[in-house]
Amino acid sequence: MQFWYEFASTYSYLAAMRVEEECGRAGVRVEYKPFLLGPIFTELLGIKDSPFNVEPVRGRYMWRDLERLCAKHALPWRRPSVFPRPTVLAARVALGSGPAIAKVTRAIFAANFGDDLDISDPDVLRKIVASAGGDGEAALARAQTAEVKAQLRANTAEAQRLGVFGAPDFVVGGELFFGQDRLEDAIAWAQRT
Amino acid sequence: MQFWYEFASTYSYLAAMRVEEECGRAGVRVEYKPFLLGPIFTELLGIKDSPFNVEPVRGRYMWRDLERLCAKHALPWRRPSVFPRPTVLAARVALGSGPAIAKVTRAIFAANFGDDLDISDPDVLRKIVASAGGDGEAALARAQTAEVKAQLRANTAEAQRLGVFGAPDFVVGGELFFGQDRLEDAIAWAQRT
Repeated sequence: MQFWYEFASTYSYLAAMRVEEECGRAGVRVEYKPFLLGPIFTELLGIKDSPFNVEPVRGRYMWRDLERLCAKHALPWRRPSVFPRPTVLAARVALGSGPAIAKVTRAIFAANFGDDLDISDPDVLRKIVASAGGDGEAALARAQTAEVKAQLRANTAEAQRLGVFGAPDFVVGGELFFGQDRLEDAIAWAQRT
Repeated sequence: MQFWYEFASTYSYLAAMRVEEECGRAGVRVEYKPFLLGPIFTELLGIKDSPFNVEPVRGRYMWRDLERLCAKHALPWRRPSVFPRPTVLAARVALGSGPAIAKVTRAIFAANFGDDLDISDPDVLRKIVASAGGDGEAALARAQTAEVKAQLRANTAEAQRLGVFGAPDFVVGGELFFGQDRLEDAIAWAQRT
């Protein structure tokens, strides 16, 4: 099962903290696919901001919903003082962290939404990678390579091809499931196919 | 628990077909609150159509998602040939059907999304009410009263006050839950409070 996520996305945070455990229980392997929602929102909606900022009534609901959902799943929650944070570097660092991508992904999300840390800051990211058991210096260096930059662009293009219009998403054999609350459906689909 | 729904809303169909049974099992009473999404979309988004038509990528996902969800819940599904259908009269008929509102609500949704019938047609609605065990003639007559018209306007205004920006919704003690996939969370909230 592919797990598609954007580090600025609140609902992606919930999915990221649960996906490995739920899939592990079900015997489903997770492939981590960070991508950027910004270019997709710009193309589909003509906006340069989060829809939750552009549509404040929906935004107000989302913030309350996140409090409730984090309480339900016993996850730390602190509303970020900057939203959405720029996530190009964080996504590249995740892609540059190789086999540590699952742990690094969770650590970056936890920093943004549990600790309100500036995940666009290279120093912060270096420490996050180290705290997740990776090599911060090496991950930051790889994040700046042409290869990793191209990989993030390719992920975002692939998300568009798959019909992604928000995050998180789960993809099983080309079948798209949108939203953290569809994790169980996606797992069931993966088990059937 | 209040169940807020719009007869043109595909995800409201799913919720309407499940809410009574799930709440019954949990010992939670359902209050039926039909309302109109049109004025809310116009106010919040400045559109006079469904967001699923305005945003075709999201729309394409929704239609596929509905197929999958109806299969999952063993519900009939036929993509309506007109979407969204005008629902002012259907909502008034539901409000005019008194204690039969739960059954009439399910019958109207099933007509729109299971049988692709024109639920804006008074003759169709009359038959639907009768098939649900109500008095079609009387419900259509009540639908045209000033009282029922005012009640639908009041419902829509109350939905706006509650922060509704889509449908379906469940409200428990002022706490808003958006989306058919949040039915279980809303029930759990009702049981706790």
